[in-house]
Amino acid sequence: MKNYIKHDPWCIIEDGFYAEYNEITESLTSLGNGRMGQRGNFEEKFTGKTLLGNYVAGVFYPDKTRVGWWKNGYPRYFAKVLNACNWIGIDVQIDGETLDLGLCPVSEYSRVLNMKEGILERTFVASLSDGKQVRVHSQRFCSIVDDEAGAIRYAITLLNFDGKITLTPYLDGDISNKDSNYGEKFWDEIRKETAFGEAYLEMRTKDTPFKTELFNVCTGMKIDLTLNGEPVDFQSKPVKAEKFVACKVEIEAKAGEEVALYKYAVNLASLNHPTDRLLANAKAYVERIADKGFAQMKAEQIEAWAERWDKNDIVIEGDDAAQQGIRFNIFQLEQTYTGEDDRLNIGPKGFTGEKYGGSTYWDTEAYCLPFYLATADQKVARNLLIYRHKHLQKAIENAANLGFKDGAALYPMVTMTGEECHNEWEITFEEIHRNGAIAYAIYDYIRHTGDEGYLAEYGLEVLIGIARFWAQRVNWSSDKQKYVMLGVTGPNEYENNVNNNFYTNYLAVWCLRFTLEGIRSWKSEVSELLQKINFDFEVETAKWQHIIDNMHYPYDAQRQVYLQQDGFLDKELLTVDDITEHRPINQKWSWDRILRSCFIKQADVLQGLYFFEEDFDLDTIRRNFDFYEPMTVHESSLSPCVHVILAAMLGYKEKAYEMYLRTSRLDLDDYNNDTEDGLHITSMAGTWMSVIKGFAGMRIRNGVLSFAPYLPDQWQGYSFRITFKGQIIRVSVKPEAIEVENFSNLPVSFAVNENLVELEANGHRTLIITVKK
Amino acid sequence: MKNYIKHDPWCIIEDGFYAEYNEITESLTSLGNGRMGQRGNFEEKFTGKTLLGNYVAGVFYPDKTRVGWWKNGYPRYFAKVLNACNWIGIDVQIDGETLDLGLCPVSEYSRVLNMKEGILERTFVASLSDGKQVRVHSQRFCSIVDDEAGAIRYAITLLNFDGKITLTPYLDGDISNKDSNYGEKFWDEIRKETAFGEAYLEMRTKDTPFKTELFNVCTGMKIDLTLNGEPVDFQSKPVKAEKFVACKVEIEAKAGEEVALYKYAVNLASLNHPTDRLLANAKAYVERIADKGFAQMKAEQIEAWAERWDKNDIVIEGDDAAQQGIRFNIFQLEQTYTGEDDRLNIGPKGFTGEKYGGSTYWDTEAYCLPFYLATADQKVARNLLIYRHKHLQKAIENAANLGFKDGAALYPMVTMTGEECHNEWEITFEEIHRNGAIAYAIYDYIRHTGDEGYLAEYGLEVLIGIARFWAQRVNWSSDKQKYVMLGVTGPNEYENNVNNNFYTNYLAVWCLRFTLEGIRSWKSEVSELLQKINFDFEVETAKWQHIIDNMHYPYDAQRQVYLQQDGFLDKELLTVDDITEHRPINQKWSWDRILRSCFIKQADVLQGLYFFEEDFDLDTIRRNFDFYEPMTVHESSLSPCVHVILAAMLGYKEKAYEMYLRTSRLDLDDYNNDTEDGLHITSMAGTWMSVIKGFAGMRIRNGVLSFAPYLPDQWQGYSFRITFKGQIIRVSVKPEAIEVENFSNLPVSFAVNENLVELEANGHRTLIITVKK
Repeated sequence: MKNYIKHDPWCIIEDGFYAEYNEITESLTSLGNGRMGQRGNFEEKFTGKTLLGNYVAGVFYPDKTRVGWWKNGYPRYFAKVLNACNWIGIDVQIDGETLDLGLCPVSEYSRVLNMKEGILERTFVASLSDGKQVRVHSQRFCSIVDDEAGAIRYAITLLNFDGKITLTPYLDGDISNKDSNYGEKFWDEIRKETAFGEAYLEMRTKDTPFKTELFNVCTGMKIDLTLNGEPVDFQSKPVKAEKFVACKVEIEAKAGEEVALYKYAVNLASLNHPTDRLLANAKAYVERIADKGFAQMKAEQIEAWAERWDKNDIVIEGDDAAQQGIRFNIFQLEQTYTGEDDRLNIGPKGFTGEKYGGSTYWDTEAYCLPFYLATADQKVARNLLIYRHKHLQKAIENAANLGFKDGAALYPMVTMTGEECHNEWEITFEEIHRNGAIAYAIYDYIRHTGDEGYLAEYGLEVLIGIARFWAQRVNWSSDKQKYVMLGVTGPNEYENNVNNNFYTNYLAVWCLRFTLEGIRSWKSEVSELLQKINFDFEVETAKWQHIIDNMHYPYDAQRQVYLQQDGFLDKELLTVDDITEHRPINQKWSWDRILRSCFIKQADVLQGLYFFEEDFDLDTIRRNFDFYEPMTVHESSLSPCVHVILAAMLGYKEKAYEMYLRTSRLDLDDYNNDTEDGLHITSMAGTWMSVIKGFAGMRIRNGVLSFAPYLPDQWQGYSFRITFKGQIIRVSVKPEAIEVENFSNLPVSFAVNENLVELEANGHRTLIITVKK
Repeated sequence: MKNYIKHDPWCIIEDGFYAEYNEITESLTSLGNGRMGQRGNFEEKFTGKTLLGNYVAGVFYPDKTRVGWWKNGYPRYFAKVLNACNWIGIDVQIDGETLDLGLCPVSEYSRVLNMKEGILERTFVASLSDGKQVRVHSQRFCSIVDDEAGAIRYAITLLNFDGKITLTPYLDGDISNKDSNYGEKFWDEIRKETAFGEAYLEMRTKDTPFKTELFNVCTGMKIDLTLNGEPVDFQSKPVKAEKFVACKVEIEAKAGEEVALYKYAVNLASLNHPTDRLLANAKAYVERIADKGFAQMKAEQIEAWAERWDKNDIVIEGDDAAQQGIRFNIFQLEQTYTGEDDRLNIGPKGFTGEKYGGSTYWDTEAYCLPFYLATADQKVARNLLIYRHKHLQKAIENAANLGFKDGAALYPMVTMTGEECHNEWEITFEEIHRNGAIAYAIYDYIRHTGDEGYLAEYGLEVLIGIARFWAQRVNWSSDKQKYVMLGVTGPNEYENNVNNNFYTNYLAVWCLRFTLEGIRSWKSEVSELLQKINFDFEVETAKWQHIIDNMHYPYDAQRQVYLQQDGFLDKELLTVDDITEHRPINQKWSWDRILRSCFIKQADVLQGLYFFEEDFDLDTIRRNFDFYEPMTVHESSLSPCVHVILAAMLGYKEKAYEMYLRTSRLDLDDYNNDTEDGLHITSMAGTWMSVIKGFAGMRIRNGVLSFAPYLPDQWQGYSFRITFKGQIIRVSVKPEAIEVENFSNLPVSFAVNENLVELEANGHRTLIITVKK
């Protein structure tokens, strides 16, 4: 854990330069707009610790799979998030001396990410040789209004001397991924151009044997210069090198004068433009934003962010650390995915790093969907569902590669295009519960939006593929006289290749039942589909029903808890308090030791109880929580949020608050010692859930939105907005009351602590409700 | 399976050129002498299918570990068997046209490996352009007398024309491994020389970050030329290129004249010579063998092989396929490992290929040791044991890397230097039964040689390290009230990360008991050792005894069979007959499907019953054999031999014979479709065991050598020689009698079918015993 980021309700503040933590701060101050983004790297040269990162949504490289021993069924390639052209770079020389914070002493340093406005700002004073001092003030943003563009204002003031400032804003396409197998480069240069004050560089991803789509990205820039705020004439000298293009300008300045360079940049990808129009479109785009100008772009950015915050903010009173945490999570989610493009998804690191690769994990369905359901237009969540519908055929092929047949679908663990691109057998082939999360998301979407027709339109086709997979994946144990599911990895990846993981077995049966009910309800509407996919109603549904009725669930009758898997009780049952010095175990223990220990990476049985809460009584949930939580090391970012929700439900307020801080400040405080690789984007939606479903106890029961809020002792109040079936309400939880506002044109009904409440159109109501203690 | 190799008692014969199978034939006709060896590649250029392979014993390269996701505890490098300088190459041009069997039509082709003499011979007629025909006759061997040398006689006769023959015998060090990660080269050139008729090339393995030993290898050659058997004067033109050196000679020949090139070559490694003396020693060595001459070297080779066969041959009458099979296995073992150097071991592919890497697996102890015990000097087996004693400290470090302490030792799965160099977690960290095989080998050595003192001298130190490992690796299951061993992979690698593998649990307890007994017997002799290793007699032995008394063994009371692991009965219990079209499953099924199936790669429970036969009654062995063998796919080369032994014991003669053919002709008939990668060297000792322990029923019971022989129906008789406690006997099994000869100066006693027999010194006796039916 680290604690150098200042607590502030709206800003991420590095006050003073923490060079050792620079890669962490770079992650924390990442910018993005759904189409492109980058880490909070410095514009000027920096020879200290840094991880340069610029990313373009949907652009990936299929790198050669790296394994020791090949196993049948492994995917051909691993889709890497591709580190792309660096468009923020500005080489700075003062009287011929390069400005480099790795070398110059620096003072009055601050780096501030203003989340309210979506702007990253840096100020510092650097000391050069001969006692020369310069002040730098940079501002940068990725525009959420012009979402293929970004802008930088980089201002230099010579403090105690007159001198010559040489500025070389550049575009550098000679970039490699940190995680390339052997340092290979993945980009070829296609063309470059530079003329007065403008530069363009078009790169294409290298060809591979894997025949996936190649991507062209054209990056362009235009620069401008002011002296004390006034435009100045300047000469720009074109610079060209391999995969590199720049404009060099020189200006003489007197002490106290401010020279400001404006850099307007765009990133146009062949995903969104005809390849042969990339350069022309980039030029037009650059022209347009440069004409608009930095001040106008910035004003629009602030206004657009204000609109977003108006919809999505969670306000927490009396606890800056908690407030900063939740806003940081919401801000980063908003930067990563806007939901406008159904080809995109929510990568685990967003635009903040390249670790893990791929873009789509089960995180999307299990953790992110609820956030978008409750805070965005319905089409955003729907696009996330349709993304999987589009990949159904690939999921069927994927299952066929593993020996399944007749339309059984196994969605990949990690994907960019629908093809599997992860290659550890215990994950790729065995962490199959992901399939269930995709089914659950359909259920979640329908109960939240009321869009029942989705089942007939898209949902059932996906559900049947998934159900067919489960029906083939189980086998009958003549020993147990039950169906069993052998050789799986559950959400707790600290167990591999186990038999009868409770969560997976339960989820599989749920999928079969949900699909069965769906088919029965929509039989006539989907008759054409059923014919198309050769659905044998009698045979298939009978098989499913038999599995539903006869699945084995490991259970300990003595403790009355579900067992994570068969044989769990053979382990030495310790608690995390027994291994304080050994944590995080994934950095200290060998894999076999982790596997045979009882320690749990993230909610597993508890993930099932969270998903299917209504199937279990509170005592059952409590017994399982009390048994498993003390063994849980929360070394997955997806772990704490589920525990907040369950702890809140069980009235474990201290545990809930502890877990809330852990999920909301996971990256800010670097809990798992890995923020330097990038942020944990998908779990940020879990943080949102931990407030809404945890402290506020939001549920949807029989189609009715309900709350059971309480106020953590550390807070004076909190409020949030929720979209539900097209209606929008704001809920404010205060020490002795709950206030609800209705922003819709229709009356809204919902339940609070199981009392049904009606609120008139555009209405405001204060409920005097004793909040749970 | 393939069937193109002619059945012959002494030779491996390719009659006619099978270009498509060339890589298989290259494997089958590999040559070696314990110090160096090579695949049966052609001397002349060949553009067809080929896997060039030359290897030098003990020389390896630590290649970068290749994994998708790094796990704590993984070894830093993977030791690759290093493909070394090609010293057999002779470029041949006839009137300027290159001889290349990939291009020229060829007739009268044969390639014959004469196992009796240790000589590889090739003859063919090649058709060149314009109807020119040439006959080639090559002979080659790796000398077992001069074991750093080899020699070639390469003779050409122009059949129907006069012409110019240009011969360029060369040394080529520009070699890469087929299994290099990204095609990298692992050798640097150090120096090269070429003068009249001689050439030298010294290479060194590239430096790496892993700080393992670097190896220099100096390869040298000298050539000679004859015309119709008479020496001729010749000019030799030196040729040099990067990592390449050659001597080019030209000679005019008339039709019908035979031009013969002699190539004398040596491979001197820095393992065996001071690095700064390599070149000088190579020159002297070359001089010596060239002076000796080809005919003399060949005569010595034949004589030396005759001596070896005299000791080790198994003669089978009436079944050429079986005879050829067993001799092929013995021949290749003899070529691979001579036991003279305790730094060397028996690599899984010997000098026949580079797959798998490393040199030492548990195969050595479990499969190879019995062969060397019974056919070689006692020091050979002892050297194999001492090899592990030398690695004890590394094994303790290896265990410490995985979290074990207080001197617990885990020997590596694969090693070259004592360091682990395998990197699949389910094998590296979990296939820990290998540790038990190393203990078992000590037991096996002592019972066979009677060298009881070995325990005190070396054995107990190793055994205690191993016992300490087991004592820490188990844990107490409060649920079962037994010790359990979680997260292991047994010999059947088609199960990973299972709990309570019967074989591993049984072996662990056996190790504890054997070690305990050893300490008790030799307590005073090893008191210094016990002090050195901080052995707490009371505490440690009490713990061991408690584990011995309370280990859990999975068992099915209904079928009365041991279970391969907990939960085995949840599987769908099929037999191999149910999946005929799916075999081999390791080439047709994805890994998860293999894992959750019941199918068994190689003896697992049965390996335990084989090792500890005396602990079980015959009915128990039969029930387990009847249960497991039908599920066994024998996709490990180590599988069939154990099944021969058990089947023979149980009187399952057809099964025993079927398995015998499978083990003895595994490579000759390419059962597993992988002979092209190299031969399965270590399992060849298993083939030897299948005759001696299988058909002849050899056992050592209470210190007495015993036999219970039977004659397979397909054979008319078989005989073999056995060394036992320094005495040598020959056993001949005939249809109605067993003949035994005693070659020692002392009387020998042994049991046949449980009757004790005494044989006078140098005695011969025919026992008329009804052979088991």
